[in-house]
Amino acid sequence: MLRVQMAQAKIDSDPVPKNDRGTPARVPHEPLSSLDTLVAALRVLPGVGPKAAQRMALHVLQHDRDGALRLAHALEHATRSIRNCERCNTFTEDVVCALCRSSKRDASELCIVETPADLMMVEHSQAYSGLYFVLMGRLSPLDGIGPKEIHLDRLLKRATDGIVKEAILATNFTNEGEATAHYIGELLRSRGLAVSRLARGVPVGGELEYVDAGTLAQALRERRALGE
Amino acid sequence: MLRVQMAQAKIDSDPVPKNDRGTPARVPHEPLSSLDTLVAALRVLPGVGPKAAQRMALHVLQHDRDGALRLAHALEHATRSIRNCERCNTFTEDVVCALCRSSKRDASELCIVETPADLMMVEHSQAYSGLYFVLMGRLSPLDGIGPKEIHLDRLLKRATDGIVKEAILATNFTNEGEATAHYIGELLRSRGLAVSRLARGVPVGGELEYVDAGTLAQALRERRALGE
Repeated sequence: MLRVQMAQAKIDSDPVPKNDRGTPARVPHEPLSSLDTLVAALRVLPGVGPKAAQRMALHVLQHDRDGALRLAHALEHATRSIRNCERCNTFTEDVVCALCRSSKRDASELCIVETPADLMMVEHSQAYSGLYFVLMGRLSPLDGIGPKEIHLDRLLKRATDGIVKEAILATNFTNEGEATAHYIGELLRSRGLAVSRLARGVPVGGELEYVDAGTLAQALRERRALGE
Repeated sequence: MLRVQMAQAKIDSDPVPKNDRGTPARVPHEPLSSLDTLVAALRVLPGVGPKAAQRMALHVLQHDRDGALRLAHALEHATRSIRNCERCNTFTEDVVCALCRSSKRDASELCIVETPADLMMVEHSQAYSGLYFVLMGRLSPLDGIGPKEIHLDRLLKRATDGIVKEAILATNFTNEGEATAHYIGELLRSRGLAVSRLARGVPVGGELEYVDAGTLAQALRERRALGE
């Protein structure tokens, strides 16, 4: 009923409001600086917008302050202790990571990936037993990411140690990933290394009806003979 | 070519593998404890699963360590300094929040919401100039959330201070929110307070074709006479 009157008052454009409760008081906005600071700080996480950041901040404050403190300490500790492996450039807490130190890996193969997440995915496939080099990025001249930013000088030194025979380019199949693979491929082939690229084609379990045309075209072009 | 041979080897189920590179070496999994700890700790955030947590951890380590440290400090500071307002129970850094302290608000109206986010939304509507009480939850007996957990004893004391005349129930229109509104409504009405509930109906800008049947039924049942 109240709301009806307020709405009517607005519709009528009555110069004198019938009910002064219709005009909200100026809200003395609380300078909740530590909440605002937290919401702003959460935006550092990828995929977290202003709305999600607010939901996250209120959620942890309301439901799990211990968890929030654990997260704070984990962030500090990881930021302080995680560095890049001197050999393969992936994240590690040591000077040289456990993978590079392992004697069970085939040191003649070097798989080149964009990120530590990609390295983990290749490991997860359990189809590779060589070593890695992590670029920590991809060539993207428009964003100012050139050969230096993806550590190609270190990669070149690493790949030409005399032990590595084959470089496997496992950058993404995006435009930038492909350009990076092409660039590195040329570079390493000119030093006499065998260079290969991950196969493209229909995913395992994929149905042709639902595979995109580009992938299918690639699978046709790179078809392999049976009974080889 | 290599891969073709490996695949053939598997298909043939040859007891002696033709190429020992097909069997991956046991990976000495790096005990990257501080990364694993960070990924696990990120799961405290709502809507963050294992995959998103890993992506977030690697992203901040790779791209924004300063941001990660800022987030750590913001979490610690907010957790330490944000408490609940003694009057309305919302988050504040003071004993009584700025809204409750304001002399410009109409102390005869008390809007009851589930969360601080809901309070912010009502403030954002600029259609309310009274005070609030934040339940920090909703009745949910199956989850062990009863009247005590949503501070109904404090609400009762707050609402019966002799100044509050009308309680506006602004819990969600979910089953639990509705049950909470019903319960609180009965409680406050028995103490002689006027009790109202947010209007239900077609959203502003809503097209009937796309409004769900339940909302439309409610809008019909609660239709209001024009020219009132």
